[in-house]
Amino acid sequence: MLGVQGIKQAMEYRNLIDVLMSDKHFADIVLYNGNVINVLTREVYTADIAIKGKYILLVGDSASLIGPDTLVVDVKGKYLSPGFIDSHMHFESSMLTVTEFSRLSIPSGTTTLVADPHEIGNALGPVGMKAMADEASVVPNHVRFVVPALVPDSPSLETAGHDVSSKDIPDLLSHPNIIGIGELQGFSNAKHVYRNTPEVITDLLASTIYAKSLGKVVDGNAPELFGPELAAHIISTGGKCSCHETTTKEECVEKLRQGVYVFMREGSTQKNMAECIRAVTEEGFDSRRCILATDDMVAEDLEKLGHMNEIVRRTIAQGVDPVEAIQMVTINPATYFGLEDRGVLAPAKMADIAIISDLKEMTVEAVFIEGQLVASQGKLIIDLPKYTYPDVVKHSVKRGPITESDLEIRAEGNQVTGRCIIAIPDQNLTETLEVELKVNRGIVEPDLKQDVIYMACVERYGRNGSIGKCFVQGFGLKQGAIAESVAHDTHNIMVAGTNLKDMVIAVNRVIEMGGGISVVNNGRVLEELRLPVGGLITDELTGSEVSAKVANLDKVVKEQLGGTIHAPFMHLSFLALSTSPKWKLTDQGLIDVNNFEILEPIVK
Amino acid sequence: MLGVQGIKQAMEYRNLIDVLMSDKHFADIVLYNGNVINVLTREVYTADIAIKGKYILLVGDSASLIGPDTLVVDVKGKYLSPGFIDSHMHFESSMLTVTEFSRLSIPSGTTTLVADPHEIGNALGPVGMKAMADEASVVPNHVRFVVPALVPDSPSLETAGHDVSSKDIPDLLSHPNIIGIGELQGFSNAKHVYRNTPEVITDLLASTIYAKSLGKVVDGNAPELFGPELAAHIISTGGKCSCHETTTKEECVEKLRQGVYVFMREGSTQKNMAECIRAVTEEGFDSRRCILATDDMVAEDLEKLGHMNEIVRRTIAQGVDPVEAIQMVTINPATYFGLEDRGVLAPAKMADIAIISDLKEMTVEAVFIEGQLVASQGKLIIDLPKYTYPDVVKHSVKRGPITESDLEIRAEGNQVTGRCIIAIPDQNLTETLEVELKVNRGIVEPDLKQDVIYMACVERYGRNGSIGKCFVQGFGLKQGAIAESVAHDTHNIMVAGTNLKDMVIAVNRVIEMGGGISVVNNGRVLEELRLPVGGLITDELTGSEVSAKVANLDKVVKEQLGGTIHAPFMHLSFLALSTSPKWKLTDQGLIDVNNFEILEPIVK
Repeated sequence: MLGVQGIKQAMEYRNLIDVLMSDKHFADIVLYNGNVINVLTREVYTADIAIKGKYILLVGDSASLIGPDTLVVDVKGKYLSPGFIDSHMHFESSMLTVTEFSRLSIPSGTTTLVADPHEIGNALGPVGMKAMADEASVVPNHVRFVVPALVPDSPSLETAGHDVSSKDIPDLLSHPNIIGIGELQGFSNAKHVYRNTPEVITDLLASTIYAKSLGKVVDGNAPELFGPELAAHIISTGGKCSCHETTTKEECVEKLRQGVYVFMREGSTQKNMAECIRAVTEEGFDSRRCILATDDMVAEDLEKLGHMNEIVRRTIAQGVDPVEAIQMVTINPATYFGLEDRGVLAPAKMADIAIISDLKEMTVEAVFIEGQLVASQGKLIIDLPKYTYPDVVKHSVKRGPITESDLEIRAEGNQVTGRCIIAIPDQNLTETLEVELKVNRGIVEPDLKQDVIYMACVERYGRNGSIGKCFVQGFGLKQGAIAESVAHDTHNIMVAGTNLKDMVIAVNRVIEMGGGISVVNNGRVLEELRLPVGGLITDELTGSEVSAKVANLDKVVKEQLGGTIHAPFMHLSFLALSTSPKWKLTDQGLIDVNNFEILEPIVK
Repeated sequence: MLGVQGIKQAMEYRNLIDVLMSDKHFADIVLYNGNVINVLTREVYTADIAIKGKYILLVGDSASLIGPDTLVVDVKGKYLSPGFIDSHMHFESSMLTVTEFSRLSIPSGTTTLVADPHEIGNALGPVGMKAMADEASVVPNHVRFVVPALVPDSPSLETAGHDVSSKDIPDLLSHPNIIGIGELQGFSNAKHVYRNTPEVITDLLASTIYAKSLGKVVDGNAPELFGPELAAHIISTGGKCSCHETTTKEECVEKLRQGVYVFMREGSTQKNMAECIRAVTEEGFDSRRCILATDDMVAEDLEKLGHMNEIVRRTIAQGVDPVEAIQMVTINPATYFGLEDRGVLAPAKMADIAIISDLKEMTVEAVFIEGQLVASQGKLIIDLPKYTYPDVVKHSVKRGPITESDLEIRAEGNQVTGRCIIAIPDQNLTETLEVELKVNRGIVEPDLKQDVIYMACVERYGRNGSIGKCFVQGFGLKQGAIAESVAHDTHNIMVAGTNLKDMVIAVNRVIEMGGGISVVNNGRVLEELRLPVGGLITDELTGSEVSAKVANLDKVVKEQLGGTIHAPFMHLSFLALSTSPKWKLTDQGLIDVNNFEILEPIVK
């Protein structure tokens, strides 16, 4: 009745029982006399932790388990916590491989990552997601995935590299590292979805129910939903779901009351924890369904600030009891995901342990994963295996070079009213502007005085060659152009610039690199970053190198093009996100998100 | 990718979404303006609950969901709670069928029962357990089962009707109403099991790991285990387990700290909640792994006191916040068992709702199950379907009648030292006595002056015909004999009496009835109860009738035989339980439980 894995598991358990019950076998390691953070009871007390192989044997007096070969580590005064879980994150946001992200996050105490490969899924479909899930098998930390049930997000309004629907779900969910469906956002724009694309709901329900039948999770995504619309969303996920798009206390209260697991987001850009946590600190809610997650983290923050330990530190700073805050990155997500073998310090659990020297500051001194010491003093102390991405996930850019005429916005007369997206710093939401623009020889011109420049979205997968065009305000560019193949969520090539010539060069350089980021001025590429994996990730640089490279890209835009918005590429990439209001730009054109329709760049 | 069930589920969800999102469809029922007990957030607040079909649509303002045909029920001032879950119980203890137990427990607000069919499993093996699991499909409440992985408990020391081991588990776990393994007690006598029957551990691990691979639960049972022995037990259950044999605060603290879900037991006989709950009331432990359960409830208590509502009432009386106490019979067990569709009031959950008029007294006024009003004012208001047990679960008594010589304890000389079990009121544990007894014509005689009478355990399954014999003190019988086919856990026929003649008649009457209980004096049967299903359960009487019958059996023993112990049949039945110290009697003989060996009834 047991397969090979089952028999192996039985033998492992049998070995543990032998250590506990006989006087001939002993623990491998005893962490002696530490302050155990017990997330089961919400206590801190002095105890030992005995480890055998990859498992915790015992939390408590372990004297009888110490033999001649047992490594006894005195951890008096240190705090012992279950390793941390990031419950929702995208590797692609960091532009790092699974391996390089792991290198930066493990030393901060993160031992489990639940990633949504939504971006690579848009670029490459199941092939890309499975390649990433394969890479997860070679790293020492535990990396699991929740996969999108629908790509692209807005089927008629944008073009992805590959479409994903319920037909792809059985194959994806059969991968051992894929534990569910991610970011189901059927009702994120509730009335429109219901009225305009009811077939999408039916398709999502098929994926949901299939995933549930396997005991897998369905993550949700329910920004600004309340009452009946929130309930409809919850039902579309099969009744158990999470939301990492909760931004106000009021929303958080509503979602927790209706049974949603609220992933309080605190990443490099979106910081919602301080607002959400008020449901706990002000209302005294039971926090068992409160979970902390990063969603998007850039390499620089990982390196300089830390990872989940930093998010926990900020949560404690909001007035949450430290053990309760740690529950939000350990037992709470482990329970949600059904990851029964981790998230608590107890017999038979994985020996994933963060050793913390200062509980308030969440200073992580050392990290064990599956009973092995893997990090110490903020550095990984083991070698990571090399994973080579298969060729099929590279060369995702399949279109030929563009010309100036491809980007021109043409009109008759001398002056027209142009439609312009206003980028808002640190937000995905945009404002809108209708602006008078001059026409020169049939081509509408930007207006640098008003910070109104060109923007285009160039389909890059060779599927239809579409190019969407409009104007944008907020970048502050005085000259040149910037382009990138990172453009949420379909990841066509976004370009913004003061003139068509530099824009064409910037886009063509991204195409030539097979994906990446470029900064161009006066016909010359000033800086660039190659992103060979799906046009989203580099497998050529380490986390530190990416961090330095992105900093320099930003610096060049600021110093040489006169850009004023910080993190210009992050902002540019989210101007393509067709699920967040008000106007966005996809390869299909300027999208009026609230009305689910395409607008012309020029008002007729 | 979806089977028939999945498509049905998708259509049901789609219907719910239509009600929530369109203005053409409406709720079936709105419970208007109640005090919602929100076990997710641990709040009570005023809100509506809208119901469609068997599901909750929305908890909150439901005005927009009320149509011309919606039944609006004003529940102002009433409390709305998720239906209660009894997480560990045995139908056999009540001698009632699933149907009759449901009739008595539903009106108290219990909507889900997780039963361990351990007793019928001992008598009849998988056939009996599956018959009970089949009956569960016809009742309106939700009845699920956790099945034993090992029958009998002590393989070499007793004879069950059927042996059960890991070979039976795959078939049992394929039944839709069987959700896991129950009462895994591999380490309940830790050192002995480890040293004497290591093959049992290997077999249990096979069952454990198989069950876990299906996402099913493994209940535990870890009386008086601490430290390494408790850890070994936890590992033998695969790391996630419960224990309903926790009797002290100290044990409860230890188990919660090590990750065990503590089922605080409060049944008709064993009452451990008040002691266990001190981990919450005195130590302030996070109570998410605290669960209330009854284990054994007799029909009379169900009828007169109530069920889980009464246990919750007692828990509140110990100083626990009412909503926190209700969490222990709703969200906490639903989470433990993975019963994701219930235990909270939220969209997409089953509309299983208890309407409570007095929160402190836990007075249940009405009960909904799957959106149907099923009970009101303490009475079931629907008809229950008739389930007919298959013939194969009857006639479990397969031996012929016994004679006096079968029960004689023979010795030479005039006087010997006899071994006598001392029954202790309200405990499974016994004390032991060595007592001087007279021998008359080679037969050792009882000593009524010292309340030392005969006891025997008669194998009833036709497997080996063994009869175990010894003496017993504590029943106070002055004449006659009592016998029953209820005798934990193997359920052979236990008989105790002042003389062999009446004992033989009592046993033979039980055999003749095909299982049951008899009271005999002076060669005449004074009272009896037929238990045709496995010799444990009546399918001929209602709960009220059983309650009256048992009361009369007890009365006859007291008034006509001079019995002094209350509930004599309950006590007699537990004197066979070979897993609880010190001495017990099985068909194989007098068992020294601590030393795992069989003793002669006479000291040599």
